[in-house]
Amino acid sequence: MPKTNKTALNEKEGVSISEITNASSIKTIKNRRKKQINPEDLVSNILKKNITALSRAITLVESTSLKHQETANNIIKQCLPHANKSIRIGITGVPGVGKSTFIETFGKHLTAIGKRIAVLAIDPSSSITKGSILGDKTRMEDLVKDENAFIRPSASGSSLGGVARKTRETIILCEAAGFDVILIETVGVGQSETTVHSMVDFFLLLKLAGAGDELQGIKRGIIEMADTIVINKADGDNLSKAKLAKVEFNRALHLYPTKSSNWQPRVATCSALQNEGIDNIWKIILEYIDITTKNGFFKTKRNDQNKFWLIQTIENQLKSDFFNALEIKEALKNQIQLIENNQTTPFAAAEFLLNLK
Amino acid sequence: MPKTNKTALNEKEGVSISEITNASSIKTIKNRRKKQINPEDLVSNILKKNITALSRAITLVESTSLKHQETANNIIKQCLPHANKSIRIGITGVPGVGKSTFIETFGKHLTAIGKRIAVLAIDPSSSITKGSILGDKTRMEDLVKDENAFIRPSASGSSLGGVARKTRETIILCEAAGFDVILIETVGVGQSETTVHSMVDFFLLLKLAGAGDELQGIKRGIIEMADTIVINKADGDNLSKAKLAKVEFNRALHLYPTKSSNWQPRVATCSALQNEGIDNIWKIILEYIDITTKNGFFKTKRNDQNKFWLIQTIENQLKSDFFNALEIKEALKNQIQLIENNQTTPFAAAEFLLNLK
Repeated sequence: MPKTNKTALNEKEGVSISEITNASSIKTIKNRRKKQINPEDLVSNILKKNITALSRAITLVESTSLKHQETANNIIKQCLPHANKSIRIGITGVPGVGKSTFIETFGKHLTAIGKRIAVLAIDPSSSITKGSILGDKTRMEDLVKDENAFIRPSASGSSLGGVARKTRETIILCEAAGFDVILIETVGVGQSETTVHSMVDFFLLLKLAGAGDELQGIKRGIIEMADTIVINKADGDNLSKAKLAKVEFNRALHLYPTKSSNWQPRVATCSALQNEGIDNIWKIILEYIDITTKNGFFKTKRNDQNKFWLIQTIENQLKSDFFNALEIKEALKNQIQLIENNQTTPFAAAEFLLNLK
Repeated sequence: MPKTNKTALNEKEGVSISEITNASSIKTIKNRRKKQINPEDLVSNILKKNITALSRAITLVESTSLKHQETANNIIKQCLPHANKSIRIGITGVPGVGKSTFIETFGKHLTAIGKRIAVLAIDPSSSITKGSILGDKTRMEDLVKDENAFIRPSASGSSLGGVARKTRETIILCEAAGFDVILIETVGVGQSETTVHSMVDFFLLLKLAGAGDELQGIKRGIIEMADTIVINKADGDNLSKAKLAKVEFNRALHLYPTKSSNWQPRVATCSALQNEGIDNIWKIILEYIDITTKNGFFKTKRNDQNKFWLIQTIENQLKSDFFNALEIKEALKNQIQLIENNQTTPFAAAEFLLNLK
């Protein structure tokens, strides 16, 4: 009896090999092995501007799996020395202002002059509705087909902070993949503008002429954040109204104190639909980059943004650790009741709760 | 030899008793014993509207001594069931708007109609300069002599949060001492308006006509907090300008969405110097109290304010505990350096620091 016969599979002649070793399973297993993520390979492919590798890395960043997050952190760390070289532009404006059309036209203008651009989005509502801006890529028909453009819908997440973190990490990956300009769209809901403002170099506010829109903007403090206000749809019958709005916004902007960037915010008009005034906006941005690079503000702002995110992340974690602890949740309810009954003060209650931990 | 002679003090005749037992020391010790604070006595005297007892309790609240703070907490707890019955009014406006004159005239009006009023202040700058608004009581010559008025300068403290806590606790003591109206002045520096707004029922913004002041107010979000804007110095040559400003502010206020209080903020003119329009302001406040008491907003707002202070106090403590820890201070510097060198991200750095604690 030859030694080979010792294997159980060959014990009886005529018995086919076990199911698990059938051709289909082997293929699946091989495919899985192939899919096994090798961070070093991914990084090296990202640096080679491979879009598939970039997309896979972003998927890891967005994953809720702890293992994926560890791999993502590893990849981001390796990408960091190659990041930070793009111009990061935030774009906001109320629904209907024409953000998608603007990004499409502006993006096409940039790729036409040889830039590689990435389009990301911050959409806090997507974590609730599971919908997403940029989700409907058909709204950017031309840009989506452009090989020098990369469009990625908003990450979803349980909180705006979570979405923001994923977007910031995605920026790093996109920069490592050699994108020159990162456009970050925001829906203009809740705190999303502030969040985007805290991660971009240049903040662009899209507006329409008329409609009392101006005052709403002032109220929400968005105008103060804008490095440039662009009045869109300045075409046809709308043109003279847009020019008037430009004068008004310019006057309003001059009432604000000079920014620490030494940059006097601009007002421009454009028609994204008819591709008019788009080159001028890019010129304004380049001028901004030039001025703020020379006076050091560009670097200072990025450092400040990094510190902001560092502190924010820590503070959010401290708070959620505290308030999510079971013993605190119970005791908090009780203390609030005591406060309402005039049996304790908010300060005494705070001390009591802090002593529980 | 009698036993008593064994004491050293009596060993030699004619030697006077030791220094420590001299008359002056005995007096000092007796006085100290007298001053020993008995919380129960203080509380019972506060409830009897005794101003000396109130002042001593406030001094305990403001003390940095841990022992005093414990006594203060005890006193506040006993006062709580007797508190919450006043109308708390916040008064703000830029320097020069006439806050002191307004408070003097308004305060005198209130005492004249039988109200007992307490005037407090929030002055974050006083913790730095050790100066204080209301410190110069001569600015309110008449009110300071009024036995139905109690004026207390701003507490000093190392932080606005600390000053705010002391002021909120002082409000409770004043209410227990039977004051009907608490006026809280703010200097309008930094976050002081927001702080005062979060501890009053009614927020009154003093303005002057003209001077582009309007837009500055809009910018800082103060106008949105105001329940009523009062244009002061509406007298003499200024009268027509003040009336015009009233129209303009009214128009501006109508552009803001209705508040959850269902209260449409008012604009009034007055001349504190000439005691004109003061009674009208009190009428407006009573109308506000009436409306918000009936629709439940008054109580809801106070509950929300209590919760706000509870959460704020806890969060501030969590942050200061974390960031003041020696090991964190060192590591934080190091992590910030790594971020600036593109060797880590704010998020990875945050995780690293959180794991240290």
